[in-house]
Amino acid sequence: MVCVFLVSLVPLVVKMRGQHVTAAIDFYFDFSSPYGYFASERIDELAARYGRAVEWHPILLGVVFKVTGSAPLPELPLKGEYALRDIPRTARHLGIAYRPPAVFPIATVNAARGYYWLQQRDPRLARAFARVCYRAYFAEGIDISDSQRLAVFADSLGMDKDAFSAGLSDPTVKERLKKANDSALARGVFGSPFIIVDGEPFWGSDRLPQVEKWLQTRGF
Amino acid sequence: MVCVFLVSLVPLVVKMRGQHVTAAIDFYFDFSSPYGYFASERIDELAARYGRAVEWHPILLGVVFKVTGSAPLPELPLKGEYALRDIPRTARHLGIAYRPPAVFPIATVNAARGYYWLQQRDPRLARAFARVCYRAYFAEGIDISDSQRLAVFADSLGMDKDAFSAGLSDPTVKERLKKANDSALARGVFGSPFIIVDGEPFWGSDRLPQVEKWLQTRGF
Repeated sequence: MVCVFLVSLVPLVVKMRGQHVTAAIDFYFDFSSPYGYFASERIDELAARYGRAVEWHPILLGVVFKVTGSAPLPELPLKGEYALRDIPRTARHLGIAYRPPAVFPIATVNAARGYYWLQQRDPRLARAFARVCYRAYFAEGIDISDSQRLAVFADSLGMDKDAFSAGLSDPTVKERLKKANDSALARGVFGSPFIIVDGEPFWGSDRLPQVEKWLQTRGF
Repeated sequence: MVCVFLVSLVPLVVKMRGQHVTAAIDFYFDFSSPYGYFASERIDELAARYGRAVEWHPILLGVVFKVTGSAPLPELPLKGEYALRDIPRTARHLGIAYRPPAVFPIATVNAARGYYWLQQRDPRLARAFARVCYRAYFAEGIDISDSQRLAVFADSLGMDKDAFSAGLSDPTVKERLKKANDSALARGVFGSPFIIVDGEPFWGSDRLPQVEKWLQTRGF
């Protein structure tokens, strides 16, 4: 009887372990966040090493800051000046291409809406679009608040430029971005990047080593 | 002539390199800062690997926050709740003993003054006192805002208890702490720990790997 009982548990344990291993990691970021950019250059590869996928969620930090009372880095006394040194140094530390943008921060509502519009059509294209946006802004000096520029990116990925541009004011796309912001706040997201692994929250690109340890050890 | 000129430069270069290598690293911290505690458990050993000493500077974050408009972690929406997970997890990640204090944050003016009083007498004792304070508060559940308790620590380090207690209201000690706070602000310190290596600022215990790389490569 004991043996039968134990054997009957095996599929359940395997299933639970399987579910645990394959659950996607949630990656929240704002397209105007340099540390979000750094995480975006590492998170997929890191997760893949442990058999995990990553769900990307662009959000608007402006909405988050209304709740937390915080502000963009350049507006923070002393911390803003520090960030001007820390951001390029962190890029060099991680070996990621970085050029300080001429205007920082910028409005990222178009980039985020563009992402969700693409995501409804082809999640892989949306991911590629996000990478193009981040690299354009933080490594190539391109202003990604400009919807015309974003349409060029969509075009280069094989999407119809006009459909993409119209999509930026599509009510269902606006609603998806609003839901992403609301869900982020409900889950305690207060900055970018913010990574959630099996309910465990990690803030900042400097937490990637802890994310990796968490994936390795399933909690530590 | 060229040869004589070059030879005459050698001692200067050696001296400059020598100064560069031996200049102390500045370590600013508040005794109520858990991330400052984590850095305190690593910074001396890390610096010593590169032949560098560390100058410890306890400061009062309350004074700093009046300038920056920030507040202690528990008062920050969402970030405060996050910190309750991040602090013990970071301790486990670093392999440092940690027990969440019953009261957090606490007033650290007595601990900081005690440090500077001891520092005037014996810098090594002051360092030992700082370690005792940090471990007591963050690993042993002891309230270090209590001046009686601090006097017990001083006593255990071989200092006269009554002289130490009187020292906590010594005007020269108050002045040293004030100068430490002013100097920290003038150097851009906005949080704890804050580490300055040859003019380069590093904020947070998570920047220790960058501090190490900076020492290794003399800037990167």
